[in-house]
Amino acid sequence: MSASACAYTLRPIGQVESTLTDPVSAPRQGDEGAPDATLVIDPDMWAGCTDLRPGDEIIVVTWLHLADRDQLTVRPRDDRARPLTGVFSTRSADRPNPIGLHRVRVRAVDGTTIKVSGSEALDGTPILDIKPALGELRDR
Amino acid sequence: MSASACAYTLRPIGQVESTLTDPVSAPRQGDEGAPDATLVIDPDMWAGCTDLRPGDEIIVVTWLHLADRDQLTVRPRDDRARPLTGVFSTRSADRPNPIGLHRVRVRAVDGTTIKVSGSEALDGTPILDIKPALGELRDR
Repeated sequence: MSASACAYTLRPIGQVESTLTDPVSAPRQGDEGAPDATLVIDPDMWAGCTDLRPGDEIIVVTWLHLADRDQLTVRPRDDRARPLTGVFSTRSADRPNPIGLHRVRVRAVDGTTIKVSGSEALDGTPILDIKPALGELRDR
Repeated sequence: MSASACAYTLRPIGQVESTLTDPVSAPRQGDEGAPDATLVIDPDMWAGCTDLRPGDEIIVVTWLHLADRDQLTVRPRDDRARPLTGVFSTRSADRPNPIGLHRVRVRAVDGTTIKVSGSEALDGTPILDIKPALGELRDR
């Protein structure tokens, strides 16, 4: 069986708390007026977060749990005047594996929560992973 | 049940073909001498790729299928002289949800394959998603 025929199971490490609750009115990108948000990390995953510091630029990897996984083409920004476009050339949430990438900055770390700015993720979005922003830290 | 208590299932859309087969000798980042690679996309997912063009800068999202999912702290670059660091401040493949982000450039599109440069992904790595590079296309 080829690797691409396997299925893999994700177990979220936490979830986003945000004032953004409506997928229609939420900003499309983090630099379009996104508010501060809180990453609520499961306590048993916190050992992975202890080196995050205010000012760090991070990629929050999420599972866009409201997405339609059957879409392979979309109209960008839901604009009916625009042509159907392959989802892998877009940032549509609707895609076979609806993984979200959110580049944000850490504002504060408090208990097992991380306050960040510039997140367009909706309230309740599951968090899968956190990484240093691409082009910043080069270590792994 | 909270969102973070749910599990989600990934179904890869294809896999990486590369001359990189050894996790130990593979470059740590795509700009450290990574060779060209081929993204072999499942034919039933190809409709999502038809707008990808040579020159496009993309993020290939992969499942790092050889990773140890039980690690919450690592020594960066496996250097025993360095302190244990929370995985969410590193690019270690070993992490609870081993999702890889590979920023590469499309060289050619041929059939249902995409040739890219600058990929450090190992041969056989499952592909989960492809997105326009962060900071490039702003649409979704």
